[in-house]
Amino acid sequence: MSLLVQKFGGTSVGSIERIKAVANKVAKFRAEGHDIVVVVSAMSGETNRLLGLAAEISSHPEPREMDVLVSTGEQVTIALLTMALIDRGLEAKSYTGKQVQILTDSTHTKARIERIDEVKMRADLKAGRVVVVAGFQGSDEHGNITTLGRGGSDTSAVALAAALKADECQIYTDVDGVYTTDPRVVDKAARLDKITFEEMLEMASLGSKILQIRSVEFAGKYKVPLRVLSSFEEGPGTLITIEDEVAMEAPAISGIAFTRDEAKLTIVGVPDTPGVASKILGPVSDANVEIDVIVQNTTADGTTDFTFTVARSELAKAEKILQGTAAELKAREVIADDGICKVSIVGVGMRSHAGVASKMFAALAEVGINIQLITTSEIKISVVIDEKFMELAVRALHSAFELDVE
Amino acid sequence: MSLLVQKFGGTSVGSIERIKAVANKVAKFRAEGHDIVVVVSAMSGETNRLLGLAAEISSHPEPREMDVLVSTGEQVTIALLTMALIDRGLEAKSYTGKQVQILTDSTHTKARIERIDEVKMRADLKAGRVVVVAGFQGSDEHGNITTLGRGGSDTSAVALAAALKADECQIYTDVDGVYTTDPRVVDKAARLDKITFEEMLEMASLGSKILQIRSVEFAGKYKVPLRVLSSFEEGPGTLITIEDEVAMEAPAISGIAFTRDEAKLTIVGVPDTPGVASKILGPVSDANVEIDVIVQNTTADGTTDFTFTVARSELAKAEKILQGTAAELKAREVIADDGICKVSIVGVGMRSHAGVASKMFAALAEVGINIQLITTSEIKISVVIDEKFMELAVRALHSAFELDVE
Repeated sequence: MSLLVQKFGGTSVGSIERIKAVANKVAKFRAEGHDIVVVVSAMSGETNRLLGLAAEISSHPEPREMDVLVSTGEQVTIALLTMALIDRGLEAKSYTGKQVQILTDSTHTKARIERIDEVKMRADLKAGRVVVVAGFQGSDEHGNITTLGRGGSDTSAVALAAALKADECQIYTDVDGVYTTDPRVVDKAARLDKITFEEMLEMASLGSKILQIRSVEFAGKYKVPLRVLSSFEEGPGTLITIEDEVAMEAPAISGIAFTRDEAKLTIVGVPDTPGVASKILGPVSDANVEIDVIVQNTTADGTTDFTFTVARSELAKAEKILQGTAAELKAREVIADDGICKVSIVGVGMRSHAGVASKMFAALAEVGINIQLITTSEIKISVVIDEKFMELAVRALHSAFELDVE
Repeated sequence: MSLLVQKFGGTSVGSIERIKAVANKVAKFRAEGHDIVVVVSAMSGETNRLLGLAAEISSHPEPREMDVLVSTGEQVTIALLTMALIDRGLEAKSYTGKQVQILTDSTHTKARIERIDEVKMRADLKAGRVVVVAGFQGSDEHGNITTLGRGGSDTSAVALAAALKADECQIYTDVDGVYTTDPRVVDKAARLDKITFEEMLEMASLGSKILQIRSVEFAGKYKVPLRVLSSFEEGPGTLITIEDEVAMEAPAISGIAFTRDEAKLTIVGVPDTPGVASKILGPVSDANVEIDVIVQNTTADGTTDFTFTVARSELAKAEKILQGTAAELKAREVIADDGICKVSIVGVGMRSHAGVASKMFAALAEVGINIQLITTSEIKISVVIDEKFMELAVRALHSAFELDVE
């Protein structure tokens, strides 16, 4: 019937019992006549155990050797799962990333996939075998073992699906799909049957961390239909598809994302001269502090207030750098605020629907929430507000955009 | 200076501290100017942990997948040791068996090495790098991961030394060399400075289990000088060399080996006709019972008494088979005895020295020990005696052949 690539993460293969449960699930799909490539992560806890050993050996473990070490985690899982499949009477064969081979560049611990040789897998599938592949790993042109970085198993699965032109890439997780927002905040949050790649990217980067962003980008680029499902429950999950299929009748917005892990920094009264933005942000990004929202307002007196947000854990570091910059630029002051949160509405539908922004701002005003910052993109509008209003804002927006399930 | 292959077993790399100690030892040799290839086993306990996981998955785990699973053990060690070496300022690089590559046949879980590609290792050595290789593993011509079976890391080390034409293959263990006999039985047992491959083979198979037999055969075949040393203490260890170098002035015998893990079976009064030996032993070996000593005596009445020894754990199985054979051959009776032991003297010197056997028998008679069976080979004489005399026999022989250290 179909060719499915099914990816099971660390929690889904976290014990012998769960590996057996995955084998049962795969056997069921096989019995329905599907050809199956399974991609697995290391058993949960195993990667951290290995990282712990490395940390005991050296404070700066060599990246090449880190990959040799950490890649054993998935190798254990592919062997155990393949044994379990064979034990159930299926034909099955395991592959390390190097055996496939999944060719990557040589950037150890965060390599990028360059090419996948699908010939051997194709032959196994033709012979009726389930192919079990170690996620998160590959090898470079010199035969060195590489890893894709944390969460890279999703990317492995999508890349294999693209190489094999699979009918669907199924990512099994501990949630049963993508929701309009976090069900822990809004109990009327609804599972989406479909979402576009672009929306998923905006959702993922804003805190709904179900899929690794790179894997979604990859899936979008190669047009691999991606489905998020639960490892533990039955259900259709959420299909992530290319835009055109869903955009026509899509509602204005698909979901509400939020994060409280940010902090806000404002440098007040900077002379508004060309190049001032890069003078402010340059030293911050040189220190490897990642910047999220950036807003600049020119005031009437010819100076400008410049505001940006950083991860809350990096606020102290960023503030110190900014104090130096402020002195240099003769700015009036630096204001730091870690009591903020960011709430965003996401949806490809907003492109063609005027009034989405005003509807959002009206909904927030109605419940008395003051907006501190606003940024917008093609398919997303984000506001920064006082942290204590986060849940209230998410619920108000979820209701205003008619996402509540009855 | 020299090119050394150094092998460290599971106990020697059994913890982070011990891996660091190995790194220090390797660094010391490197500082002396030696080129070094290190071969390591899995950290002690790790292989059993992995086998335990497989046992939980399936009662008959697929051999190919067992190799994928178990080979991760050494892969972890090569990464950690290489990190430790780099942390000490050395240049170092790890290789899995497949990366070397160590080409084996496809007999999973007990593969045999066919060929080793030494080009990459040679280039690393030339560039001043310590090469760290996973023992016990290789890959077949199709790229499948294989393992050599338990203890195979010794074989890996010897095979690498042969391929690289190393000056010496050093096997680091928890003993500081090969002794004339077990120091726990004879407190005057002496460490041998040298021993021949043939003697080592006879010693190893008789219970002085320091080196895996296959590795000694391999070393003898390829004339690789092999040295057994302690991982934990300084010292020259014991050099295992080709015969000619030591035979000239060798003492009559090099050591006393013994085992109490055997049992004796005698089938009494068998008609002495051609083919009777194979009729007796055939069914036993068909049942995969390994036979050690075999002795046949023809008696005056035209029947023969046929005696052989088996591992004590297999006595019941062998006796049952033999009862069947006895009925068929119309033999008088079957006598089983598990209260025996075997004591052997080993030495290439005995070839050229008459009277070794009689000296042995006289020494045993002097302390009142009755000999039940005798077998001899070119460089070994074994006797089977009552188990309770084992220590007495070993001490008497050790003294008679002037092996005692003062």
